[in-house]
Order: sequence, then structure tokens, then C-alpha cells
Amino acid sequence: MKIHAFAALKPKGSLQPFDYDVKELGPKEVLIKVSHCGICHSDVHLLDGDWGKDIFPLVPGHEVVGTVEKLGDEIKYWKKGQRVGVGWQCGSCFACEWCNKGEENLCSGSKATCRGHHGGFAERVVVDGRFAFPLPEELDSAKAAPLLCGGITVYSPLRRLGGAVPKRVGVVGIGGLGHFALQFGRAMGHEVTAFSTSPAKEAEAQRLGAHRFVLTNDKKAMKAAKGSLDLIVSTVNVHQDWNVFIDILRPNGTLCTVGALPGDMSVSPTALLVDQKSVAGSVIGGRPMIGEMLSFAGRHNVGAQAEIVPLSRVNEVIDKVRRGKARYRIVLACE
Amino acid sequence: MKIHAFAALKPKGSLQPFDYDVKELGPKEVLIKVSHCGICHSDVHLLDGDWGKDIFPLVPGHEVVGTVEKLGDEIKYWKKGQRVGVGWQCGSCFACEWCNKGEENLCSGSKATCRGHHGGFAERVVVDGRFAFPLPEELDSAKAAPLLCGGITVYSPLRRLGGAVPKRVGVVGIGGLGHFALQFGRAMGHEVTAFSTSPAKEAEAQRLGAHRFVLTNDKKAMKAAKGSLDLIVSTVNVHQDWNVFIDILRPNGTLCTVGALPGDMSVSPTALLVDQKSVAGSVIGGRPMIGEMLSFAGRHNVGAQAEIVPLSRVNEVIDKVRRGKARYRIVLACE
Repeated sequence: MKIHAFAALKPKGSLQPFDYDVKELGPKEVLIKVSHCGICHSDVHLLDGDWGKDIFPLVPGHEVVGTVEKLGDEIKYWKKGQRVGVGWQCGSCFACEWCNKGEENLCSGSKATCRGHHGGFAERVVVDGRFAFPLPEELDSAKAAPLLCGGITVYSPLRRLGGAVPKRVGVVGIGGLGHFALQFGRAMGHEVTAFSTSPAKEAEAQRLGAHRFVLTNDKKAMKAAKGSLDLIVSTVNVHQDWNVFIDILRPNGTLCTVGALPGDMSVSPTALLVDQKSVAGSVIGGRPMIGEMLSFAGRHNVGAQAEIVPLSRVNEVIDKVRRGKARYRIVLACE
Repeated sequence: MKIHAFAALKPKGSLQPFDYDVKELGPKEVLIKVSHCGICHSDVHLLDGDWGKDIFPLVPGHEVVGTVEKLGDEIKYWKKGQRVGVGWQCGSCFACEWCNKGEENLCSGSKATCRGHHGGFAERVVVDGRFAFPLPEELDSAKAAPLLCGGITVYSPLRRLGGAVPKRVGVVGIGGLGHFALQFGRAMGHEVTAFSTSPAKEAEAQRLGAHRFVLTNDKKAMKAAKGSLDLIVSTVNVHQDWNVFIDILRPNGTLCTVGALPGDMSVSPTALLVDQKSVAGSVIGGRPMIGEMLSFAGRHNVGAQAEIVPLSRVNEVIDKVRRGKARYRIVLACE
């Protein structure tokens, strides 16, 4: 069977129609007819060759929603026509301690949906059925697609580091990731503070769930926020004065970064020590956490603010994402 | 009443006999006749003026063991003659959320035993009775004194960050703090790895509880340790290549620093993100944690390897601590 997709043939190359062959489905694989695929900033990193030059031809796309069209012999839990989503990860070893604990995202044998495997900028995609997740009925496919990577990326640290009781949570950067974090944080019962360099985002941030809005370049406002938050989820991909954000934490607080930041970050060990703070990283989520996130999103009406564009216009919108001009997410309509 | 003590009158000044007057005991205060007082590296920082020039005359000493000699009117829980210990903290507000949760170490109204208050390099000391802790009978006074600051400093991160189930724990720096961390880590059931720049410490580290010993300047051994530990407690006060230690962590692992490090540390956000690692700080412990640590130390025979020296020789041994030559702790005999 031939799969019609869009691929870049070299780093920074534009995407062009690209067909590839799939022979037999493996016993645990599913063939998904893609209806929507979100564009994530990591697709741009992959396309630009930032994360490897030897991954071309590259069919990007790892925020996939579609319907199950064909099932491998061993898959008993999906039905044809069922709507499912696929995120960054499309395989793991299913044998290590992390897989056994449902933290497949930490498996050293993790396989990515669009790196060394053809992704969702396509009519169809083939993945391990265990990495396809059913979508709650309430979720609109286009709004749900970006949850599969962008959504879980911020949902996981909010759930793991936010504690059992609602707290005071900050979100740095109100873009594709941040706009999910505001919605999830609010729906989880946290008091949510949005940090942005753009005053224009204040009203939107509040509509999305922020109780407070702080301009990160307003030194006075940043100083006034000192010692006010338990958890800060930073979604930005440019370095900040991290010690200023550490100062904004309360005792026992955590600054968690989920953006792809180049180089090292500079943090004061004294600031960490005095009030027992920490700096953490977080990466997507395991299968149970993704399932939980999708249910939660359905129940609380969390979804992407997305511009929907046909797959044929992919080059134009990829460039928009590259320039940080997407508001907040762009989703490709693939059928 | 006059209290005979040793004080420095100015930064880097030598200690000299110093008497001060105590009038009435406050209703919640106790007068303690000091038998032993440990010397901690933070006493040297205080004496050298690193942490403020306006704290002189300064009576150092915050690892105090002694017997209760006199009680304030409201203290019903101690008896005269009872043996107690006092650590870094001698007061807190007892009204904030941290005090209410037994995390008095995080109280913004925390009072230090030997900063703005005269400490334990003395015949006697007066503190809030709520910051005096009974010592289990099994503990020898001299060996127990350094537990009150050095011991709790490493016990707390091992307990808070070590998880419910014994794990793989690393200890960086096998000195005054590290030698407690090896003992506590072993007694808690962890697999313990000691990191030191000194090959001479291998046998001692093993005697203290280490299962493994890694020379931090042996690049090959450090590389071989990659991905092997869940928690690393760093006790050193000089910067390391922190990313090498982050690489030694397993997924979900934490690098916790408890040493007084100058300036900033440099850490890779990508390394934190990919395997969900974190860098944390920890500071002494709250009253419940100190009580628990002392019981645990009594039960498991954890104590300082200490040289015991009369208070009159304090200047000579302070200098030894300053030069990092104490093995592993020096304790002043004060009576």
C-alpha cells in the first residue's frame, strides 16, 4: 500500500508530495486515516536539521488525529472507524521498568512518530496501536490534535509537580504550549499567573484561564511577584534570567522548563537551597498520563486555539510557525 | 546571669573569652549547660564575614549538646538535667503555614542560633525550648552534636527526595556532611555510591556505608556511572561540571545540592527535560524531621567521626576547619 504524504528531502528543504510503501501491518500496528495534524515547534527543529541531519526524507507531524482504518492481528481493543490520536511517541520497549510503570516517555527504546518514522503530515500513518489513544466524544478533532504533544507537555508537569491540592501556578510564555497550560491550570483549580513579554496577550491570557498577568520585562511587577508561586511551567525557548523566576517561587517551589532551550541555564544554588526550591525538566507523558489528559480535556473543554489550514498549504504555515507567528497553534486538515 | 563564651569581635578576628549577660529567661526559653559543640563550615563563613559584617561580636556554634539547667515558666516538656541538642535554628514565628506544617526551616521569621544570637562556643546557651531536641540514650554526646546541623542537612534530602522505596543514591564529597550521608543512606537501605577526588577516602567511605566509590576526576569511571543513580546529594562547596552528575542520574532523578556554593551553577535544560530530571536545594530540616533524624541516628548508630578538642583550643581548630583539614568533624568539649 502506498501512503501519500509530504516530506522534506533535506534540512531546511521545503515539503513536497512524497509517497512511501507500507507492506503488511505488523501484528500490533494500526493504519490510521489522518483527519488533522497539528504543527509543533519541534517539527520545525526537525525540518531545520537542528536535531539531526540524517533523518531525511522526513515526513513531520506528531499531533495526529484520525480514524482507525486497518488493524494488526493482535489488536483487539480498537475498532475500525474509531477516532484516535497519536503524539510524539509511537513506540517503546514495553519491557523496561519505565514502560512497566506506565512512564513509557522515559523508555530508552522510545520511538518518535516523525523521526526515523514517517509522521502525520500525510493521508495515513502507521503506528503501534498501543500509542494510539481514543478521543473523548466531546473533543473536536482539530482542537484536540495539538493536545497530543503540546497539551501533554504542560499537563504532565502540572499534574506531577502541582501537588494534590490546588496551588499557585505560573506559566511563562503564552504561545502554543502556554495557552494549554493556562487552560489546564485553571481547570485543575490552581491560581494561575501568566507571564509574557507581550501586553497584547493580557486579555487573551485571562480568557484562557489566567487570574493574573505579569509582563516579564516589567521589573517592578516581577519584583512584586516575589515569593508568590508554587510551580512555574516555562514554555519559552529563549533563556530568561532564571534566578528572577526562582525568586518568584515560594518555599518548596519548582521551576519546570518544557521548552527546547539551547545551551545551559544559569541558576543560583543558594536560591535553591535557602527555600528548598528546584529546577526540573519534563518531557511529554506516559500512556496513562496521555489517556488521563485527554479525558480531562474532554471534561473541561480544553482545546487548542487553532488556525486550520489544508495540508497542501503546509510550506506557508510551517514558515509561520518558524517565525513564531502562529496564534496559538496551526492544524493541518489532511483529508 | 553572666554567660562565659568565646567570641570574635570582628570579621576574621580570632576568638577570645567573652562574657555576656542574660537577664530573665523568657517564658518559652531554656538555659542549656553546653557539654559539646560541633564546628561546622558555616561557623567559618560567619567568622570570616562572608555572610554579613554586622554580626559581631559573634559567638559561633550551632551544633550544641548539653543539659537543661533552667526552664522558662511555660516550658512543661523538659526536665532539669535532661540532655538536649540545638542546631542551626533557634526560633521561628510559629504562626505561618510552614511552621504549621512542621517545616519551620522554611519560616521567613527563622532565627539562627549563632547569627544575631549568641551560639554554642560557650559554657551555656539560651534558646527557645521548642528548638531543643531530646537525644536518644544510645547517642554519645560528642558524636551526636554534629548531627544537629551536618546530620539533618543530608538526612532531609535523603528522606524527602529518596522516595518510599530504597534507591540508588550518590554522595558527592566525603567530608563532614558526606560522611553522614553515607551512614544515613546505607541505614535507609539505599545502594550508596561515594564520589570523591581523593583515592585515600575509598576505604573509609566503604566503612561508612558506601557500596561503590567513584573518583570524580576519573573521567572513565564517571562515564561508566552514567544513568545509574536516582538521587545525588552534593555536599561540596566548589562547583563541579554539574551536567556530568546530571548524566549520572537515571530518569526522574534529582541532583540535590546542600553545600554553600558561590555564584551560579550551569545546568543543561535539555538534560533535565529528556529524562525528567531536576536540580534541587535543601536546607537543614523542620522540627519533626530533626526529631526523626535523631531517633533514626540512635537506632542505627549514626554519628560523627569527630576529633574532640577543648573549647580553649578553638582558634587552632577553627583554622583546621577553614583549611578543610578536619576529619570529618571537630567537636569542642565545653565543660
